[in-house]
Amino acid sequence: VPRDREPEVAGPARALGIVGAGQLARMMVEAASRLGVRTVVLAARADDAAALVATEVLLGEATDGDALRALAARCDVVTFDHEQVDLDLLHELERDGVQLRPGVETLRVAVDKAEMRKRLATAGLPVPRYEVLGDGGDAPDAAPDPEELAAAIDAFAAPDGWPVVVKAARGGYDGKGVWPVGGEEAARALCEVAVRARTPLLVETHVDIDVELAVVVARGCDGASVAWPPVETAQVDGVCREVRYPGDLEPDLADRAASLARRVAEVAGATGVLAVELFSSDGHLLVNEIAARPHNSAHWTIEGATTSQFENHVRAVLGLPLGDPSPVAAHVASVNVFGAPSKEAGDPCDRMSGALAVRGAHVHLYGKAPRPGRKLGHVTVCGDDPTDVRERAWAAARALGTPVPGSLDAGAT
Amino acid sequence: VPRDREPEVAGPARALGIVGAGQLARMMVEAASRLGVRTVVLAARADDAAALVATEVLLGEATDGDALRALAARCDVVTFDHEQVDLDLLHELERDGVQLRPGVETLRVAVDKAEMRKRLATAGLPVPRYEVLGDGGDAPDAAPDPEELAAAIDAFAAPDGWPVVVKAARGGYDGKGVWPVGGEEAARALCEVAVRARTPLLVETHVDIDVELAVVVARGCDGASVAWPPVETAQVDGVCREVRYPGDLEPDLADRAASLARRVAEVAGATGVLAVELFSSDGHLLVNEIAARPHNSAHWTIEGATTSQFENHVRAVLGLPLGDPSPVAAHVASVNVFGAPSKEAGDPCDRMSGALAVRGAHVHLYGKAPRPGRKLGHVTVCGDDPTDVRERAWAAARALGTPVPGSLDAGAT
Repeated sequence: VPRDREPEVAGPARALGIVGAGQLARMMVEAASRLGVRTVVLAARADDAAALVATEVLLGEATDGDALRALAARCDVVTFDHEQVDLDLLHELERDGVQLRPGVETLRVAVDKAEMRKRLATAGLPVPRYEVLGDGGDAPDAAPDPEELAAAIDAFAAPDGWPVVVKAARGGYDGKGVWPVGGEEAARALCEVAVRARTPLLVETHVDIDVELAVVVARGCDGASVAWPPVETAQVDGVCREVRYPGDLEPDLADRAASLARRVAEVAGATGVLAVELFSSDGHLLVNEIAARPHNSAHWTIEGATTSQFENHVRAVLGLPLGDPSPVAAHVASVNVFGAPSKEAGDPCDRMSGALAVRGAHVHLYGKAPRPGRKLGHVTVCGDDPTDVRERAWAAARALGTPVPGSLDAGAT
Repeated sequence: VPRDREPEVAGPARALGIVGAGQLARMMVEAASRLGVRTVVLAARADDAAALVATEVLLGEATDGDALRALAARCDVVTFDHEQVDLDLLHELERDGVQLRPGVETLRVAVDKAEMRKRLATAGLPVPRYEVLGDGGDAPDAAPDPEELAAAIDAFAAPDGWPVVVKAARGGYDGKGVWPVGGEEAARALCEVAVRARTPLLVETHVDIDVELAVVVARGCDGASVAWPPVETAQVDGVCREVRYPGDLEPDLADRAASLARRVAEVAGATGVLAVELFSSDGHLLVNEIAARPHNSAHWTIEGATTSQFENHVRAVLGLPLGDPSPVAAHVASVNVFGAPSKEAGDPCDRMSGALAVRGAHVHLYGKAPRPGRKLGHVTVCGDDPTDVRERAWAAARALGTPVPGSLDAGAT
């Protein structure tokens, strides 16, 4: 008979509402629990990752106004696990006095790549050369015009050469939303299908990337911000597989990236954690993507920093002072755990012994049902030697069934 | 509508049952969540600390057989938040195949001081000189005989001098259960009221304590064990107020204490975490108390050690390998947070800003309703300097309303 009595607590207990109940929400709930903060999650399913650990669970969709209002009625502040939200609906809630953190204006910048590029460029922050096709982000159904698209691609190819990058401003398109266009033939093919896109498109210069960095920033209600040190991320097929602090980043580049990310958070008016993915190209930093929530590239901060991104997100959205983001080890590696390719490999929960036998392996599993390729957890190892921490993190992730991409030399032994 | 659907999970997910839902259970739940482990707590009240964060909550008493069987039916393994249990009832459950970890034999040693003294002394481990009065621990209602008690007190006073220490073997007596007897008059007074004790009594030599240590050990199902380094504890009126790692302990003494504690865990046949409180007297170690559960003296391990006592407790009782107990900082201070003496001081939840503004302060609140003198949380600070970490931990605890005992020089500023 779970929760069949109302809590008998004197006075107003703080409660944090979370839209969505995936692993980010779960790790927010874990941080909130330590701080004595109650959590209420709006979960699509009762067995969503965070629904298994939150103080209270409301079942409903993140785009359902009644569900959102029910959530807001149960808590002091509402934050977000993901960005699949209805901005117009959230705008209404905000107008009605619901404390959304981050607010709608920040979410708009994070959700809409066209809006993001425009806002950052207007503020003088470096972004790849871009052009927005369609209705600039205000009309979600703006279908791009194929001829306009072809002309724009040509206009980028002429000075910069191929490839040219085309991106959906919102959501995805064929599940991905980013298409590098290698030449005229590919451009023609893309223009034919682009009419199906129900979102504005961006055309951008291809950037020759020397290194991909991610910087995660927490910004308080008072505008104060802290940045965790930038990390190097290894992506395979657009999916983050591992994160290394400090990686091979030059300290000067890392400092510039952290400053830039804090400026981005300021321009976006963020409250809470905001992640900035950056390219370094020929010594120049360019903002690639932003996310207005905790981010996979900073899961390492749970054990690797004095204050984790999740704790600082909770602190920030509740109007509390931010904690020290300093790392607590010289080197930290964090490797994502994915479902094994074959079902016979089983559930990582049944393979914990091998992973926990790895010295210093901090294993996080999100309580999600295993499926091949599904992100199910992560492993973090802190230490003094970059190779050693990486090998141990991969050893534990492999023990849990994570396939090792051929492109990553993960110390397979 | 919390938890109104059954989780739709393929395969057998591990679930950990916990008898009791106080702060120890809450911190077990937090550790279990990170490992992807579901938790079911048997809580006396729906707003108990761990009931607010567990995956599932059953309402019932720890001594209610039906409630315990309902708990056992919902999980793979049952562990304990506290020791207010009915050993006979638990013995029945164990006989019926319920996986209790720790098991009844270990609980008996932890719950019954007479049993503990006998078991440890028989195994050759050092305990204060003692004598058990009454039915040796097998009959819970064994009323001690006043004349026998008087004679025993005399027999201890004669060679060792006053005071002599009298203790209740189980539970408490006048709320405390430990009476130092200063002389013949006090002995007569105690003997008059001792007939009210519904438990065997121990008479013990008073030990001249040079230092009080606490060692916490985790022991796996396979008998492997790890010990966190011993810490120095500061008690005021028998209540732990602060814990310092490494404190002023001599390394040799600390090593001997850790070895002794692992032997105690072995003799007790423990599975999970077991805490041993020790006296050092003239260079000799003596076992004072043991607790077969996570312990206040090792809350510092959450941030201060590679693996916390709570994670290793969860690992141990689930039959998983134990993690590295090594400290991650040179000095760690952990200070308990208590409800302020006057109600006007308010809820620590409303005073978080001041505490979180203290650099590096890891604030844990247990979600308990505030009352003057009630233990509501703790604060841990890690660093390089023992005075600095102590001052910061106290600064945060004070900001939360914790009164500072006059006997502790807590760097009041």
